[in-house]
Amino acid sequence: MIALRIPFAELYETLAGALRALGFSAVRADLCARLFAETTCDGVYTHGLNRFPRFLRMIEAARIDIHAVPELVRSHGALERWDGRCGPGNLNAWHSMQRAIVLAHTHGLGAVALANTTHWMRGGSYGWQAAGAGCIGICWTNTLPNLPAWGSTEPRLGNNPLIFAVPCATGHVVLDMAMSQFSYGALAACRERGELLPVDGGFDAAGRLTRDPAAIEASQRPLPIGYWKGSGLSLVLDMVAAMLSGGLATHQIPQDPERETGISQFFLALDPSVLGPESNAIAGRIVASLDTRYPGRRTLELRAENLELGVPVEPGVWEQVRTIANSRR
Amino acid sequence: MIALRIPFAELYETLAGALRALGFSAVRADLCARLFAETTCDGVYTHGLNRFPRFLRMIEAARIDIHAVPELVRSHGALERWDGRCGPGNLNAWHSMQRAIVLAHTHGLGAVALANTTHWMRGGSYGWQAAGAGCIGICWTNTLPNLPAWGSTEPRLGNNPLIFAVPCATGHVVLDMAMSQFSYGALAACRERGELLPVDGGFDAAGRLTRDPAAIEASQRPLPIGYWKGSGLSLVLDMVAAMLSGGLATHQIPQDPERETGISQFFLALDPSVLGPESNAIAGRIVASLDTRYPGRRTLELRAENLELGVPVEPGVWEQVRTIANSRR
Repeated sequence: MIALRIPFAELYETLAGALRALGFSAVRADLCARLFAETTCDGVYTHGLNRFPRFLRMIEAARIDIHAVPELVRSHGALERWDGRCGPGNLNAWHSMQRAIVLAHTHGLGAVALANTTHWMRGGSYGWQAAGAGCIGICWTNTLPNLPAWGSTEPRLGNNPLIFAVPCATGHVVLDMAMSQFSYGALAACRERGELLPVDGGFDAAGRLTRDPAAIEASQRPLPIGYWKGSGLSLVLDMVAAMLSGGLATHQIPQDPERETGISQFFLALDPSVLGPESNAIAGRIVASLDTRYPGRRTLELRAENLELGVPVEPGVWEQVRTIANSRR
Repeated sequence: MIALRIPFAELYETLAGALRALGFSAVRADLCARLFAETTCDGVYTHGLNRFPRFLRMIEAARIDIHAVPELVRSHGALERWDGRCGPGNLNAWHSMQRAIVLAHTHGLGAVALANTTHWMRGGSYGWQAAGAGCIGICWTNTLPNLPAWGSTEPRLGNNPLIFAVPCATGHVVLDMAMSQFSYGALAACRERGELLPVDGGFDAAGRLTRDPAAIEASQRPLPIGYWKGSGLSLVLDMVAAMLSGGLATHQIPQDPERETGISQFFLALDPSVLGPESNAIAGRIVASLDTRYPGRRTLELRAENLELGVPVEPGVWEQVRTIANSRR
């Protein structure tokens, strides 16, 4: 199944080299490459290296401006609005969460609403970022319309991922969940394995709930988590991101993933340490009380495994990145 | 089905009279009564007047202290920790959201973490409160352990309701959702109607997903929304509430609903108006773009209907409240 494993440092440095070859400054190439490489290393293969080719195409099509840095539009106390100026989505998102963390250290909590950005790749990255700084991090993005509301057959909502990250000494708890029960990537992978989904994942063409991934891909009707509940949650996440950022809402974003720009995001950080040291012990006791695994645990295991054995890469994509990186040498 | 309808003013004033008869100050009786009456008027029959008998029993058992007011424990900028001192849960929660709103007006956003409180009745009340003040309101509570984590059969998580409220001129959007697909109240109501659930709602005794409400009541294994996703969300909500409030986590709360005290809650308000006026128009456009109903819409319809026709009450409970209210006259 895994064709090729690459040492993390080689993956990271090659990505950074490719980004420098594309014109990124050294500092921005390093951070952007690290976010891509860590995502693959953490086992989120759909949103790391494998997204790099689309990222390249969107740069070439001038839909992502590699030199754009976010710009502060307005601020009031611990709440700030930034314009992402269609810069690289992961750099914009990292900058926004970093700014929320700084605000949280000062004010106890802080929030950044970001308009006019591009795909942030793995949302969980910014949760790990907050937890690594000792903060509770909550963030979400809106997306192109790709999820029908409960009761509708037409995709007018977005599969807006929601991230909750909680710092914990025994391993941060990081929930990174989309609003559909299974992403299109998960549906495709399941179909390719010739399997059925473990639970209903959407509707078939006749409007019946089904575990057949191909039927859901064909109908374009994935199921929101909790049916009407996930549908409602998708709506309010879109509203908050667009209202606070002053940017586009899902209904205004082009439905083509290659043209998914101008999206709106929200980043919240809370610093429990400003209220005292006891939150660490509370987090540890809660995790210790569980009789199951928890969100983030599998990430840490995959990270350790991939750091030891090498990070699995798709050979074609890897070769493409190496070629770009070598083009400048 | 509806045996008796009472004018809203009569419901409210009778509840306030009963609370005064129990020893509540006039101001606190008015607010507490309004929160109970509005919940029933809004059609959330399980958490309004029908909860009043349990509220009474917990007051009589000295598990709720009717005179306790929340006390500021620590604060840092826009983040505050309060001790609810086992006061009436709806008064404590209303106070906390009000304080978060004040902080949001000053700092753009504000949060209150509340420890040591009691059941807040309808969580949506505090969302409507925030939206009514022009704020985005996000809040949640932890609960007694009543939801098995995904992969477990033992209830160690709570059915922690999560509220997202977004102000909108054409009707606020208020999502008030528990972490289980169906509450125990909804399961009982479905069973009494002799119906099956519209979708799987939990596991039967043999561990199979089922639409039979009685089988889920017997197994005590309701299904988290989105299976593993709702399970993870329940965990992080508990962690954030307990860590920031310094209070109890679900695993420390007694499993008996009549002894469910010392719970932890979190209230966040964001004031979009501090960044400019455009958020109102954005909210309106998003709601207008929908081809389905949205959370809060049905509440407004039921509210209008019940204000016009009278609020439906359960005769036995209503008689009990009237008797208490008349005991002091």
